[in-house]
Amino acid sequence: MATGDILEQVGQLIDRWQFSERAKSIQSSIIREILKDSSKSGVINLAGGLPAPELFPLDKIRQACDRVLQKYGPESLQYSLTTGVPLLKQFLANRISTIGFDFSPDAIQITNGSQQGLDIVGRVFIEPGSVVLTEEPTYLGAIQAFSFYSARFVSVRTDESGMLPDDLEMKIKEHRPVFIYLVPNFQNPSGITMSKSRREAVVALSKKHDIPIVDDNPYGELRYSGQPVPSLKVMGGQNVIQLGTFSKIISPGLRIGWIAADKEFIGMCEKMKQGLDLHTTTFSQYVVYEFAKDGALEEHIEVIKEAYGRRRDIMIDALRRYFTDGTTWTEPEGGLFLWVKLPEGISASDLLPLALKAGLAYVPGKYFFSQKPDDTTLRLNFCNATEENIVEGIKRLAAVVKAKV
Amino acid sequence: MATGDILEQVGQLIDRWQFSERAKSIQSSIIREILKDSSKSGVINLAGGLPAPELFPLDKIRQACDRVLQKYGPESLQYSLTTGVPLLKQFLANRISTIGFDFSPDAIQITNGSQQGLDIVGRVFIEPGSVVLTEEPTYLGAIQAFSFYSARFVSVRTDESGMLPDDLEMKIKEHRPVFIYLVPNFQNPSGITMSKSRREAVVALSKKHDIPIVDDNPYGELRYSGQPVPSLKVMGGQNVIQLGTFSKIISPGLRIGWIAADKEFIGMCEKMKQGLDLHTTTFSQYVVYEFAKDGALEEHIEVIKEAYGRRRDIMIDALRRYFTDGTTWTEPEGGLFLWVKLPEGISASDLLPLALKAGLAYVPGKYFFSQKPDDTTLRLNFCNATEENIVEGIKRLAAVVKAKV
Repeated sequence: MATGDILEQVGQLIDRWQFSERAKSIQSSIIREILKDSSKSGVINLAGGLPAPELFPLDKIRQACDRVLQKYGPESLQYSLTTGVPLLKQFLANRISTIGFDFSPDAIQITNGSQQGLDIVGRVFIEPGSVVLTEEPTYLGAIQAFSFYSARFVSVRTDESGMLPDDLEMKIKEHRPVFIYLVPNFQNPSGITMSKSRREAVVALSKKHDIPIVDDNPYGELRYSGQPVPSLKVMGGQNVIQLGTFSKIISPGLRIGWIAADKEFIGMCEKMKQGLDLHTTTFSQYVVYEFAKDGALEEHIEVIKEAYGRRRDIMIDALRRYFTDGTTWTEPEGGLFLWVKLPEGISASDLLPLALKAGLAYVPGKYFFSQKPDDTTLRLNFCNATEENIVEGIKRLAAVVKAKV
Repeated sequence: MATGDILEQVGQLIDRWQFSERAKSIQSSIIREILKDSSKSGVINLAGGLPAPELFPLDKIRQACDRVLQKYGPESLQYSLTTGVPLLKQFLANRISTIGFDFSPDAIQITNGSQQGLDIVGRVFIEPGSVVLTEEPTYLGAIQAFSFYSARFVSVRTDESGMLPDDLEMKIKEHRPVFIYLVPNFQNPSGITMSKSRREAVVALSKKHDIPIVDDNPYGELRYSGQPVPSLKVMGGQNVIQLGTFSKIISPGLRIGWIAADKEFIGMCEKMKQGLDLHTTTFSQYVVYEFAKDGALEEHIEVIKEAYGRRRDIMIDALRRYFTDGTTWTEPEGGLFLWVKLPEGISASDLLPLALKAGLAYVPGKYFFSQKPDDTTLRLNFCNATEENIVEGIKRLAAVVKAKV
């Protein structure tokens, strides 16, 4: 685990060279550290944000690679435009437009997954000390990305329907934030989906106070039950900067995400992206396009949804079976994660070494809090393990918790 | 051209939202703007840094894609380690070790091309106002990347053998720079290669004053004539952070580069990379590995060297034929670029609109100066155009220059 290890090792270099303050203070991602530990054999990994590899459309990706090299030839291996390959941007624009918002390819910046979208948003908005309003808990990767720019986080009170509008308005007035960061659909880590009325209230406040909303939406298309809720982007129009990705619906290893926003805003993202890495992998962009068009993406999403929905049900069943009083959990309608709250007094981070010893990895919830951590919480991924391992994993978790109560 | 256009467009957003100072001030890359203009039909493009697309090993890349999906399956499409795919890192470590420096895979961070290497180096070292020492002229993409972190550039006097050690030491003492940035082999933009004795002197100063060297080396393997010079990395060991890339020797569109440095330093890069984009495209890394291993990369480099060497000769012949007194140019032993100095009083940037009208694109040299620009200079790429177009391009350049003299 020891996230301080790397810093200790560089002690010698730090003494000799001059590093930026941020380089000296930045922490390694706890999830990445846990993933290193959980790769030991016998450990059931419910920790990471990994989608199920056995569902990757390997054969269709192979066919797409062939078609790309045949149809586009050298163009698919050459430098390309900073904002992205035009065919892919047009495909995305058409696809986003079907949800009810008229969208042009000029309003899209292709990124290396959502994580780079977060970094670019941080670059564009955050000065040291700028306030970012977040849900409570919120996504760890966003905390990491925005922390690099020395953001100050203020968390808004959140219930099972999302952010509380009264608390949001109070904090907007008090802090004049640079933006409101939300994961409105099947939130990472809590699994919560923001209700329609909350969305309306948050969008109204965003417009009233001229504060943009950053709508981080990696899981929006993965709904397994319940009724769809209208998109924040559709409701908020120009005021909403939406981050999307193919990581959870095709493959994370292709690293193709996007920012969908006003085209003037995309102009700023483009300049940032030039200095960052010129552009996202040309070849990956073509492969995603060739795979996705003509309906193959929609078919594939149906396959994933069926498998993930079943795994979610199995995890919830196992939680009901093996946990008795005092432990609670969310029952998400989609996404990859659910959120467990242990009985008061049990620390999920103290428990982790015992869980790892018992052959189970999870992420302690405290890392997902931008202000006051609740260490009785933890996050479980219900998509990446086999059905059998999900049940066994929950059994192991219940046993280590029981030993502590 | 008008790099101000984007900023003017966002006037409205800037009034309403709070952006970071850097977002408001950052300039679009002039090369990217020129490339947009030069994509018009009939324009011979000697401006960009593009390698020759007709030499891309399309068929072998297709075979590599097939093998990757067959041999590594879902792993090639899944999230992967932040520092890079172990097989590729091991391959690189072995390859770098053959040049005389014992290298471990832990001492490598895979990046999205060299540009992300520059950004990460900037992140790790630069505080607002930190001094970076550069050659004069220096690489535009580095100026752009380091400018984001508000570096202050101080250029060191440079002649046809590279940086002048006396001036370098004076500026080290005066400014206490965070690092010395060099493109020692077939420099972009000048085509100059740093001599062995200069390398020795610069490495000695780096060690004496504990100032790291950033050795940006995208072209090192593309030598067409003359004698090899020992690698800065071999000479400087731990004091040298080397940036490499497959962009010019396989394909830029796969976006695979690397940082080779001390493993403690790589630990810092890894933490930066987590927040930036988690990791570089897994699939591209496997494709590069499968293509490159077993000697195919070495064979391919020979093919490129033969073609590029011939194009260089043709461009130099054409310059000799069409230019008379007053214009000079470098005659590089490798790389992609040569550097032209027009007669005093002729501005390469004023000339550019006329050249574009006459059907030729180049990059005015002034953008490659971190301090005092010399506007009589310009950069030409001799690798990307056909042999016929190289001759025709130089003819067009000579005609617009002649009209001005």
